[in-house]
Amino acid sequence: MSEAIRYEVNALSTFVERLFENAGADAEVAQVVTRVLLEGELLGHRTHGLNLVSRYIGGMLSGQVKAQAAALEQVSDSGVASLFDGNYVLGPYCVSRALDCAASGASAQGIGIAVVRRAAHIGCLAAYLKPYTDRGLVALVYSSDPSVGLVCAHGGVDPIYTPNPIAAGIPTRGEPILLDVSMSTVTMAMVSQCRDNGSKLAHPVLMSNEGKASDDPADFFTSPQGSILPLGGQGFGHKGFALAILVEALTSGLAGHGRKDCPDQWGASATAVVIDPRFFGGLQAFTDETSFLGQLILASRPVDPERPVRLPGQAGLALRSKALAQGVSLAPTLVADLNQLAAQLQVAALGH
Amino acid sequence: MSEAIRYEVNALSTFVERLFENAGADAEVAQVVTRVLLEGELLGHRTHGLNLVSRYIGGMLSGQVKAQAAALEQVSDSGVASLFDGNYVLGPYCVSRALDCAASGASAQGIGIAVVRRAAHIGCLAAYLKPYTDRGLVALVYSSDPSVGLVCAHGGVDPIYTPNPIAAGIPTRGEPILLDVSMSTVTMAMVSQCRDNGSKLAHPVLMSNEGKASDDPADFFTSPQGSILPLGGQGFGHKGFALAILVEALTSGLAGHGRKDCPDQWGASATAVVIDPRFFGGLQAFTDETSFLGQLILASRPVDPERPVRLPGQAGLALRSKALAQGVSLAPTLVADLNQLAAQLQVAALGH
Repeated sequence: MSEAIRYEVNALSTFVERLFENAGADAEVAQVVTRVLLEGELLGHRTHGLNLVSRYIGGMLSGQVKAQAAALEQVSDSGVASLFDGNYVLGPYCVSRALDCAASGASAQGIGIAVVRRAAHIGCLAAYLKPYTDRGLVALVYSSDPSVGLVCAHGGVDPIYTPNPIAAGIPTRGEPILLDVSMSTVTMAMVSQCRDNGSKLAHPVLMSNEGKASDDPADFFTSPQGSILPLGGQGFGHKGFALAILVEALTSGLAGHGRKDCPDQWGASATAVVIDPRFFGGLQAFTDETSFLGQLILASRPVDPERPVRLPGQAGLALRSKALAQGVSLAPTLVADLNQLAAQLQVAALGH
Repeated sequence: MSEAIRYEVNALSTFVERLFENAGADAEVAQVVTRVLLEGELLGHRTHGLNLVSRYIGGMLSGQVKAQAAALEQVSDSGVASLFDGNYVLGPYCVSRALDCAASGASAQGIGIAVVRRAAHIGCLAAYLKPYTDRGLVALVYSSDPSVGLVCAHGGVDPIYTPNPIAAGIPTRGEPILLDVSMSTVTMAMVSQCRDNGSKLAHPVLMSNEGKASDDPADFFTSPQGSILPLGGQGFGHKGFALAILVEALTSGLAGHGRKDCPDQWGASATAVVIDPRFFGGLQAFTDETSFLGQLILASRPVDPERPVRLPGQAGLALRSKALAQGVSLAPTLVADLNQLAAQLQVAALGH
């Protein structure tokens, strides 16, 4: 039986960058997109890591997705507030540019915000944050996709909006706190995974098209489609629903491009907000507070003695450290997939 | 049997302002605090409306709470980012000043943020938002209280942090969307209310001090104290927990004053963020999008035909319109309470 093989991170990074470049990406775009996808992989987000490489390159080769830095257009800039039109450039490049722009506003005046409309798939939001927390900045990313409806309103049956995640990186005196949570009970990836495995969901987090709560993925894949319940479920779904509307407003609302435009191409609206604690109570007081809170949390008695309480991002950061030290372990199917792409793009294959 | 009596809003406002002034508040502080408490009452948040008047004035008279505008100190200001030290000034005044300051940054450059530490009780966050949405601004308020621990970490037993609400006002072409949701399953007010009524909670949202989920308020009021589960409950509480940590960071973290300081006086950390859509895709595109989304939501088939789907804030705004037209209905016990205060402060009583 074939087992996962470990690859050294720098070698893997060079390989993936070369794939994007040979598929036609600008060097800068190839570098940024590779960094974000590899970071997703390192943090253990396998469905939003290197696994996306062939999908992204497929989009480039079919002409649906752009990979030129110049195609990402800055529509407005006040110094602290910007709007970008992504023109369906590779999403990780769009979001990274938005975060850099927001960080520059934050470093100058304490806060910055940049909104992107029509970014291609943006991957895993948690993968964007560490470069900013490493600089002592608080970084938030919100996203939605106005071409997709999956989640119902609280008390409603029909699928209307996307899981609309909120992600944030929070500096502490040690490792950052990294959170990345959707405003729905579960994501589409989870529903599809249960369908593919023939399993039920752990909770009745779906709504059938007839208005019955269900744990059966078959009740989602119907015509008309079922929906996913908002975070909070049947009892407290008004909260996840309200927060999801806020995310829609901060992303597609500010972007001026959303559901009203009935876009037919998958494309994210994403908003980056960066805050510099030095403009408020100071970075030291900030990290003293977040570290103190982190310690209180980690000292909590666990409900299950086998499962100590963890901070958001802690498990992913431990995987990341291990991968940096020992190499990234990739499934043989993923390696075969990447090597097929490498052959097509005349890039030297990854070794075994 | 005595029934609720309706009072004309302007007369009530003048009466409450006079109470605060005669108790020693600056005219400006009295006016702002009255507006916020009355707005909470109009929106139907009875526990966070005029009901707070005697508590607030009690705090002033005992010297714990200040009511002088000059006692609210602006510690830093970059034009878009400010820090205030509330010095335990009446919270609605502190938060309103923070919102005004953030709105001024937003109007100048697209976004503004103001953080307040050590505000006295800040009431109902939803009550702050409409003046900003009326001007076409998106307004967010976050708050926490570092002197109080009520909610447990996901997977943990011990109470650590506060319900940490996120509130936002979102302009549309019609009435705004107003959301105000805690990052815990329920608030402390709900737990106390169930205890007082001798009822159970509708869901097992408490954690006993022995690590058992419970719907019995008695399991909260123990020694050591029980705790409230994060939004998402036992299945998805990692999401509410993560968002609550974000709120702690954005409030007490940026404020540079939090749990690490072990404050022994009740006092909020609050953060106001205001965004002007005109600096992005424009106000018209923003309200077109939020109105379109609102219509999609309102057109949802309801799970229960008797309960049509509603937007966040819709029910409160309907109560508000009715109260403005027909007067505010106050419970006789509240009127008696206010009139007792009026006698003490030499203010003419409210009529019957």
